Amino acid sequence: MAMDAISVIRTKRDRGELSDEQIDWVIDAYTRGEVADEQMSSLAMAILLNGMNRREIARWTAAMIASGERMDFSSLSRPTADKHSTGGVGDKITLPLAPLVAACGAAVPQLSGRGLGHTGGTLDKLESIPGWRALLSNEEMLHVLDTTGAVICAAGDGLAPADKKLYALRDVTGTVEAIPLIASSIMSKKIAEGTGSLVLDVKVGTGAFMKTIEDARELASTMVGLGTDHGVKTVALLTDMSTPLGLTAGNALEVRESVEVLAGGGPSDVVELTIALAREMLDAAGLPDADPAKALADGSAMDVWRRMIAAQGGDPDAELPVAREQHVVTAPASGVLTRLDAYDIGVGAWRLGAGRARKEDPVQAGAGIELHAKPGDTVKEGQPLLTLHTDTPERFDYALQAVADAYDIAAPGTGFTASPVVLERIA
Amino acid sequence: MAMDAISVIRTKRDRGELSDEQIDWVIDAYTRGEVADEQMSSLAMAILLNGMNRREIARWTAAMIASGERMDFSSLSRPTADKHSTGGVGDKITLPLAPLVAACGAAVPQLSGRGLGHTGGTLDKLESIPGWRALLSNEEMLHVLDTTGAVICAAGDGLAPADKKLYALRDVTGTVEAIPLIASSIMSKKIAEGTGSLVLDVKVGTGAFMKTIEDARELASTMVGLGTDHGVKTVALLTDMSTPLGLTAGNALEVRESVEVLAGGGPSDVVELTIALAREMLDAAGLPDADPAKALADGSAMDVWRRMIAAQGGDPDAELPVAREQHVVTAPASGVLTRLDAYDIGVGAWRLGAGRARKEDPVQAGAGIELHAKPGDTVKEGQPLLTLHTDTPERFDYALQAVADAYDIAAPGTGFTASPVVLERIA
Repeated sequence: MAMDAISVIRTKRDRGELSDEQIDWVIDAYTRGEVADEQMSSLAMAILLNGMNRREIARWTAAMIASGERMDFSSLSRPTADKHSTGGVGDKITLPLAPLVAACGAAVPQLSGRGLGHTGGTLDKLESIPGWRALLSNEEMLHVLDTTGAVICAAGDGLAPADKKLYALRDVTGTVEAIPLIASSIMSKKIAEGTGSLVLDVKVGTGAFMKTIEDARELASTMVGLGTDHGVKTVALLTDMSTPLGLTAGNALEVRESVEVLAGGGPSDVVELTIALAREMLDAAGLPDADPAKALADGSAMDVWRRMIAAQGGDPDAELPVAREQHVVTAPASGVLTRLDAYDIGVGAWRLGAGRARKEDPVQAGAGIELHAKPGDTVKEGQPLLTLHTDTPERFDYALQAVADAYDIAAPGTGFTASPVVLERIA
Repeated sequence: MAMDAISVIRTKRDRGELSDEQIDWVIDAYTRGEVADEQMSSLAMAILLNGMNRREIARWTAAMIASGERMDFSSLSRPTADKHSTGGVGDKITLPLAPLVAACGAAVPQLSGRGLGHTGGTLDKLESIPGWRALLSNEEMLHVLDTTGAVICAAGDGLAPADKKLYALRDVTGTVEAIPLIASSIMSKKIAEGTGSLVLDVKVGTGAFMKTIEDARELASTMVGLGTDHGVKTVALLTDMSTPLGLTAGNALEVRESVEVLAGGGPSDVVELTIALAREMLDAAGLPDADPAKALADGSAMDVWRRMIAAQGGDPDAELPVAREQHVVTAPASGVLTRLDAYDIGVGAWRLGAGRARKEDPVQAGAGIELHAKPGDTVKEGQPLLTLHTDTPERFDYALQAVADAYDIAAPGTGFTASPVVLERIA
């Protein structure tokens, strides 16, 4: 027997380097079911604790791409640009960004996921629009992309099936937090999807997966290297996730806020990050002269949004669902709001019904949290700070526990310096 | 949810200490199938790489004992003494030792295992005796023990079922070599078995699991601590396994050599180790005045052997199986044999059919290797060094590869100092 699972596991367990042959074999054998889940999970734990070097990560990613089909956008007349966020609280950026970049001349094939844990999922948010469908065939996806310039949909089963299987396994075996496995998971899907350029939004802070700038930097540069090695022009922005993005966390709440941005309004941090990512995507796609701020102001991004939603069965003019019950949290003192914790707000929205604990759970379209102030704002005792929304009011108590320590209010007049939205750029 | 597998895995993955509650829960939930194999294997890898402290190992062992039934030998009139070896090549010591210690007045409940990999298993050896049965009910086991003073049989399914399940999982997930898991596996079975005293034979050297004296010492003192904590008088001897024990490795070959020892003959290292372990067992059982050398010489140990084999359906006078084919390896030069590698001989015997690659494989009763010289002996060019035995001569080539570098012969007259059989005692 040339290869076996135990010798591959032992190599990494004993701090060795996996050979190209070992990596190709183990990914292929796992996809075929010859390597068992319990073998792959002990290998994943060994990788998490002992790491992989750049060559190993590159080969691992290539093997996951090779496990399935690759899409081909070469028939499109426009250059393709995609964005991936590592996930945060209130991160609805994909919703205004995809139509905005399409309005500026690129094609945006945005394969997205669902929320798990305290971070929301783009598909869950869009499904709050009556009639909208996340599941498209490859032909439907290409048609929407070709006719509207952008498409946001679920990834098909054919793309990187090894990653699909491994991702589900990592989720239940405590092996999610391994930078080599996170990087190869994201990049195998994006490279197999066939985008020409890719902008990565790597979140840093309490509400993000990466809690420190060092970890975020390592993940970002690993992914930029992988994309570049595979001929995808790749850039990463490290962005702040210590505070929720915008003023909403929750599915329909975030769609409403996204439409405000497309209408030329919306919270300044959401607008700033949307435009910063749009500029990077357009640069990477070879369209440096496009003007995303103008496309927001003149309504052309909104036009693409309406066509894109309608092409997937959604009614862009429909009323969005509103949760049946609300509960307002008021400021306990007057002063300056100096902290509003992204993780706590994410957990609170999740507990209200906006997210799911297991893959098969449903989500509530209307559930979530509205923020009435952001760090740096002056607040008065008794004024609304948060509004909690849910269809199931018995959840209020559990959600209130999550947000009880989510904020700090300092004495009136206390100085406050806000964190910039974009912390670093890695290319 | 008070406990979940992922939080337990994360605690150990992040170099934390598992609480008593976490350990009790995870062992119980794994036994019941609520914690999945893929979760337990990632936890086992995290334990292998990040370790467990003495409190964690003690609790882990206690939880494995609590997963099943405990045997009770309090109805016996004699004190109980058991021995466990961590496994070596040519290690047939249990066969003469159990009847010898019984002949000296103790009761010896010897629950044994089968061989896996290059080390042989006591049950496989005894099964080369026509008619002998390894599987006894608890009642049969107590009856044999009560009437003959010794019993060697397979452990029932009821003892430490968590260990049984975990041992099989570790075997296929590259997580065997973790001292906390080895120690708790051995000791949970021995403590559940209900012996009053226990002598551990911890092998050190190429043919053993522990390659260095440091690792062997750590394993031994961990196990002695566990036994003592559970009220079992426990002693460990660290013994040499750089050279095979005795002059045979293989099932029927080793039974024949064991009977020679019981008849008052046999290789000196086997006799020395048998008597050393017997003395420790008798001391631990509160019988310090017993004289095992006398019991070998006067035939009383042989009497117990014959009754014990017969009580389990075996015929002590039956001809033992002999392999159909032999191949002799001769000395390539004259001089002093300075090395005869236990691991290489073990692998050679295994490849000849004496051992199994997977649990369900059969073994050949007659297969194995006879040694015609041991380190320190003077050899002449062309004299027989090894005789290889198998029923399937197509295996000779593969076995010869294993033993090709198994020995060194130095110039005639080269000085040689043999390693002592017993290296250290830990109590």
